[in-house]
Amino acid sequence: MSIRLNSDTEVLAKTFGARGARLALMVKLGLPVPDGVILSSATVQAIAHGETVPEIPTELTSGGLLSVRSSPENLDWGGPNAILNIGMTDDFVKTQSQKIGVRGAMDLYRRFIQSYAVTVEHLDPEYFENLYYDQLKLADVDSEEDLSDADLSSMLANCKALYEEEIGSPFPQDPRAQLHGVIRSMARAWNGPTAKILRLAKGAPEDAGLSIVVQKMALGIGDNSGSGFVQMVDEKTGRARIWGRFLPQSQGQDALMGLRTPHMITKAEREEAGQSVPSLQEISPETIKTLQDVGAKAAMGMGDAFQFEFTIENGEVFLLDAMPAKRSARASLRVAVDLADQKAISRDEALLRIEPRNLVEHLHPQIDPHATRDVFGTGLPASPGAATGKIVFSPEAAMSSEAQEEPCILVRIETSPEDIRGMHSAAGVLTVRGGMTSHAAVIARGLGLPCVVGAGDLKLNLQKRIITTLDGQEFREGDVITVDGTRGQALIGAPKMILPELGGAFLTIMEWADNARTIGVRANADTPMDARVARDFKVDGIGLCRTEHMFFEEDRITVMREMILANSEADRRAALDRLLPMQRSDFVELFEIMRGLPVTIRLLDPPLHEFLPHSRDEMQDLAEAMDLPISKVMARAADLKEFNPMLGKRGVRLGVTMPEIYEMQARAIFEAAAEVTKSSGAEIVPEVMIPLVSANKEVELVKHRVDRVAEEVRVEKGTALKFKLGVMVETPRAALRAGDLAQSSAFLSFGTNDLTQMTYGLSRDDAGRFMRDYINLDVFHEDPFHTLDLEGVGELLLMAAKRGREANSDLVLGLCGEHGGDPASVRFCKVAGFDYVSCSPFRVPIARLAAAQASILVES
Amino acid sequence: MSIRLNSDTEVLAKTFGARGARLALMVKLGLPVPDGVILSSATVQAIAHGETVPEIPTELTSGGLLSVRSSPENLDWGGPNAILNIGMTDDFVKTQSQKIGVRGAMDLYRRFIQSYAVTVEHLDPEYFENLYYDQLKLADVDSEEDLSDADLSSMLANCKALYEEEIGSPFPQDPRAQLHGVIRSMARAWNGPTAKILRLAKGAPEDAGLSIVVQKMALGIGDNSGSGFVQMVDEKTGRARIWGRFLPQSQGQDALMGLRTPHMITKAEREEAGQSVPSLQEISPETIKTLQDVGAKAAMGMGDAFQFEFTIENGEVFLLDAMPAKRSARASLRVAVDLADQKAISRDEALLRIEPRNLVEHLHPQIDPHATRDVFGTGLPASPGAATGKIVFSPEAAMSSEAQEEPCILVRIETSPEDIRGMHSAAGVLTVRGGMTSHAAVIARGLGLPCVVGAGDLKLNLQKRIITTLDGQEFREGDVITVDGTRGQALIGAPKMILPELGGAFLTIMEWADNARTIGVRANADTPMDARVARDFKVDGIGLCRTEHMFFEEDRITVMREMILANSEADRRAALDRLLPMQRSDFVELFEIMRGLPVTIRLLDPPLHEFLPHSRDEMQDLAEAMDLPISKVMARAADLKEFNPMLGKRGVRLGVTMPEIYEMQARAIFEAAAEVTKSSGAEIVPEVMIPLVSANKEVELVKHRVDRVAEEVRVEKGTALKFKLGVMVETPRAALRAGDLAQSSAFLSFGTNDLTQMTYGLSRDDAGRFMRDYINLDVFHEDPFHTLDLEGVGELLLMAAKRGREANSDLVLGLCGEHGGDPASVRFCKVAGFDYVSCSPFRVPIARLAAAQASILVES
Repeated sequence: MSIRLNSDTEVLAKTFGARGARLALMVKLGLPVPDGVILSSATVQAIAHGETVPEIPTELTSGGLLSVRSSPENLDWGGPNAILNIGMTDDFVKTQSQKIGVRGAMDLYRRFIQSYAVTVEHLDPEYFENLYYDQLKLADVDSEEDLSDADLSSMLANCKALYEEEIGSPFPQDPRAQLHGVIRSMARAWNGPTAKILRLAKGAPEDAGLSIVVQKMALGIGDNSGSGFVQMVDEKTGRARIWGRFLPQSQGQDALMGLRTPHMITKAEREEAGQSVPSLQEISPETIKTLQDVGAKAAMGMGDAFQFEFTIENGEVFLLDAMPAKRSARASLRVAVDLADQKAISRDEALLRIEPRNLVEHLHPQIDPHATRDVFGTGLPASPGAATGKIVFSPEAAMSSEAQEEPCILVRIETSPEDIRGMHSAAGVLTVRGGMTSHAAVIARGLGLPCVVGAGDLKLNLQKRIITTLDGQEFREGDVITVDGTRGQALIGAPKMILPELGGAFLTIMEWADNARTIGVRANADTPMDARVARDFKVDGIGLCRTEHMFFEEDRITVMREMILANSEADRRAALDRLLPMQRSDFVELFEIMRGLPVTIRLLDPPLHEFLPHSRDEMQDLAEAMDLPISKVMARAADLKEFNPMLGKRGVRLGVTMPEIYEMQARAIFEAAAEVTKSSGAEIVPEVMIPLVSANKEVELVKHRVDRVAEEVRVEKGTALKFKLGVMVETPRAALRAGDLAQSSAFLSFGTNDLTQMTYGLSRDDAGRFMRDYINLDVFHEDPFHTLDLEGVGELLLMAAKRGREANSDLVLGLCGEHGGDPASVRFCKVAGFDYVSCSPFRVPIARLAAAQASILVES
Repeated sequence: MSIRLNSDTEVLAKTFGARGARLALMVKLGLPVPDGVILSSATVQAIAHGETVPEIPTELTSGGLLSVRSSPENLDWGGPNAILNIGMTDDFVKTQSQKIGVRGAMDLYRRFIQSYAVTVEHLDPEYFENLYYDQLKLADVDSEEDLSDADLSSMLANCKALYEEEIGSPFPQDPRAQLHGVIRSMARAWNGPTAKILRLAKGAPEDAGLSIVVQKMALGIGDNSGSGFVQMVDEKTGRARIWGRFLPQSQGQDALMGLRTPHMITKAEREEAGQSVPSLQEISPETIKTLQDVGAKAAMGMGDAFQFEFTIENGEVFLLDAMPAKRSARASLRVAVDLADQKAISRDEALLRIEPRNLVEHLHPQIDPHATRDVFGTGLPASPGAATGKIVFSPEAAMSSEAQEEPCILVRIETSPEDIRGMHSAAGVLTVRGGMTSHAAVIARGLGLPCVVGAGDLKLNLQKRIITTLDGQEFREGDVITVDGTRGQALIGAPKMILPELGGAFLTIMEWADNARTIGVRANADTPMDARVARDFKVDGIGLCRTEHMFFEEDRITVMREMILANSEADRRAALDRLLPMQRSDFVELFEIMRGLPVTIRLLDPPLHEFLPHSRDEMQDLAEAMDLPISKVMARAADLKEFNPMLGKRGVRLGVTMPEIYEMQARAIFEAAAEVTKSSGAEIVPEVMIPLVSANKEVELVKHRVDRVAEEVRVEKGTALKFKLGVMVETPRAALRAGDLAQSSAFLSFGTNDLTQMTYGLSRDDAGRFMRDYINLDVFHEDPFHTLDLEGVGELLLMAAKRGREANSDLVLGLCGEHGGDPASVRFCKVAGFDYVSCSPFRVPIARLAAAQASILVES
């Protein structure tokens, strides 16, 4: 099967390949594409298996040269190189000489023989290269240009003789035979084992087919002729700007090859580059107009910005191909917004065009320009933004640091593919070696991760885990540093940061996303600072406020420890009474910042031993501070020690067995809500969330006490306090029993971090030890802590959602694990009918866009 | 509603209470039950609420005394005490005097007035006691027998006067009014708040009803009269043997009250007790024959052995009640077997009669009579059998020891209800105080747990955790001791044990159980010793052989550690090569013992750090032994340390990332199988089990390597080796993905210990800290590590079984957690269609019986 390029038929990439499909569309839009024909992948497959090549219409084959190019379904899968100038024969070279001169014609002929011999007959290209250099030597000149016409003629003759000698028959003089030879060799090459393995590795299916495009040549050689590429948007910013390269007297991709210095497309470009050769605009202003017209038509007709390969033949523009215009992640937003503003695409399409992860680039804070910069190392600004964290020296350490929710900076000599997972986990990257295109730089830019590379003034001893500066300063694992990927500096400590200016296309896209999405996006925010960031990122509320972080502050940890060391419930209550006003003020601040948006507060979760000091010295200090014998502190610590803290006495298990803790927290929440309701006038309805539930009776017991506290506060404050009580679903059993839980709960929020740990029987803190092997061996397709495991954890979520809603149709469902910021997981939540996802503040824009995409896809 | 006792109506305990139902059945069988009527619970309820008492047939009320007894649906729920001799009046006492003499008649009348006054009119019993003692004092005698007829008459008059003075009206002289008063007071008493709370605490439902039995009195006073109880089976052994107590001139439960020394029932009994008063057999041999006849008829008609309350009135025997004969757990087997042999019940019924847990009593080893006994403490032999274990001083320590599968002996001053959970976890109990009916003794006997109480020659310091003997010897937590509950001794170390002789009824029941059961019972056996015990207990195979225990032996742990400390795969393989022959010989021995029964071998499961020493001294020793710097050992140990070992790098995660370990194990298994197949002639088909799977790819990777090893062994040994590869389902994800796993697996065996931990997010090692509170608060109805959580873990099991069988109809399903020995869990497995359960060897008989019961119940 084959179709004419100018056919009206709807062209499918599946049948005619990506290039073929696009060329047909361009023809349909009236763009200047050379006439031609496309052989379908089935036809090409038949040819590979020995069938004859179908007849090519005579208006194509008669009296002109042809090009043959491959058109796989996906251009990333590769395919045989194009062959140009098919139809060159001893006769035609003469005709052609009259058109473009004898030298040009001979050159084309010789190059065609060479590529035909190499591609179709598999001769060694070196033969021809030797021939070429022999001729230069014989003529005693340095370059082809210095060869005489006779020299060129002799070289052509030698070329043909070489062909005949190696193949045993003269170079074919029948254009049809040439064409068939080229097509057949391409079909076979596609089916060769090496080509197959290569494309399988790129993700092509076993039966991926190749289509072939046969077109009339636009020569590019002769008067007012040449070739080049052009695109209408800026690669870096995405703004409208025509730019490209042009090479007179050239064909195909010559302009990209770098054999001769190409011309710029516009005068502005040329001037900026300080180039003297005239730009195409200066040579032929009307050509620029034609190209601009082409760009505008393509954008409107095909809904994207393209980079065009063009050839100018005697002043006439021909388009050989149109690839999506090159653009940075940041530029893609501008392009999408502009296309939508031009009505070339809908806003929904614009939203779907943007990879949510790419937004990361927009979101990185910068060091405050007024901050003092204590620089200890200088390198290249490989990826913009600044990040502060503790030094780690291995990807494993980075992962374990992430698991503990401590930002870290990964410091390496250079990075290699094994480090990628660690880079995912790091807040920033610093390498001692490497340039702007080093592995670290490329990956960091891909991840939108602040990165400084080639900081050669630092000495790194990985054995001892020490960074040494030129002047002998030392930094060790755990020390806090900052990388400034915008300036290329490593700084001591944590200088003041400012958020990036989020303007223009970013804000437009976010606005459109919020209009399009039908699933809420909240933030996980533990502190007023987090809450402010979240608010700036326009969240729908706080989905997870972890209260334990509040107790680690200097003034509180001591009281917390007194509570833990208390001998009786009465002593414990006395300590809790002192914590109450501190907690209350935390919540007052949070409620004020969130100004009436929902705030979900998780009651205390970690096992108590996490609040006790670990070293003997610290214990001694604590004992002295509390006027206790150290033995008592040590005994209590030993008492609280657990084999598997993740599966120990934490969460609601504390709430049930030491109810006075949750009572204090509930009181703090309710008093704060009453206070802010009164002061702000907006009704604050806090959401109280119980962690680590595995049986509904746990919820009932806590609910009973929380209700009582609420009633007390209502009476004391004389207000009509409202609140919601819900469950954080983190154990598989809670998911299975969601029907029970829904009867005592206003909401269920899935804590997919812990749920993943328990469903897999896999501690995130310990998984770093073998996760890399597991991904490499494809035991897990993805790290289930990064991308929600749909088959296992996902099933539990669906089951729980169904059972919960059946038992309580008003039940609100949310997800508050780190998966809340993962686009695929957001999509899953939308499909599962969740009401919201909640993620870390800096991932909120990603989640908002992912939520919009999911809403568009699910509801269309 | 009421029924006549001799009615043909089918009597339901629900309507007429347990006593009423049984009496009706006895009447139906022609047993000598006094004539009477039963008021249904609905009628009694109506009376309590003010309705009138229905008419009692005149043949009952006219001309004789009546008794009124309560008949709750379940006799354990309690109920008002019986009232006897209703109908005694001033008139009737005269009639009665002629029958049984004036003293006897006056005594009955006075006792009736007293019990009527106390029960119906709520007078203080002390009034009447004072009256009684006043009369003795007045007459200046010590006992009632020394009072003159006039004294007795005066006491009766005083009694009536007291009644009249307190109540305001004379003692009722209308027998009908007396009867109605008694019935009404019983009905009200049942509905009183205290009675209600007491029976709710015993598990009665909110609406539990009371029926009332009204019967003619058999007097027991007069010539050839008296009362007593008798049963036909020995309380301790269950063998046929008539025994009981009899008290001439007595009523009701007088024979049990101990006011006078009762007579034995048979001459043999009397002689054995060295009693001089004649036995009932000697007084009235024909009565014994009547009673024996009653016993035989009741057994055949009601399918059990009973203890009868009887009264003899003028030589005629009347049965007042028949309660299931008292019998020890051990006796219940004999009784059930005998009943079945007599065809009084079917074998299935006999099997259902026995509480599987009671078999524990039969299963405890004893100290070998020839063993040296190194006694350090002596107490009372509170519960038979002997057990060896490490000393623990708290129930928490006992639970944690059990979790680590280390037998322990719980040592306490005395035990209290808080210790019960710890006792469940201990192998034996030793207390310093307490007698044969102390808490420890009672509970230990109930649990079939070897127990010594009141070892007063030991001093226990719980603070320091030291036991000190009289001669100053000290024992500390972790020291190994043995308690001999048969002799009442505490011994140093672990003397040689012998298994109990399991004869007679036990073997019969086990044989019947095996015939009845349609679900397999295997044993969890790690060592040849375990396997031999299992074989002796007639298992169907080994369902779980944990190979890691094999590496802790002296000669192996060093090589194991070399393997762990190896720098390269090559070094690791060298160490594994040295472990291979040791592993092989383990398996050879196992296969030989099991003689062709299936043996499921679990590949290495624990994280490697479990094999490294923990203290610095031990590390130093290891470093020296291996000629390594201690820093290297410490670094490796630090490297392997995990936050949550339960969720860490263990099980198949080791198998995937260090495949050479599983390869060695597979080779050892296959070589051993080939060797034993050759030497024994029986084909050994080992079952290789992969632990901690969470994704099928893990199975595929291990399977690929195991298959290759099998092929190598086939070629090397020239045998046609067969084996099965399966998965231990321990993670919720494995259960959810059972459909995938079933495609690579021949069997799935559910490791419900770990599966419970992960489903609940609860570490068994750490749960002891709050499990007691959780059970007390009814957060968990049962400890899910003892009784399978049907609602959560059970659902995962059902889901996995369904998905697994759908994907692979030949899939074999088993359960190998400790729940395998829990009767309720065995029943669940039968319902779920599992092929077998596997439990610890000593629980095998329990599982066999539970399996039989489940099979009978499921298939009937």
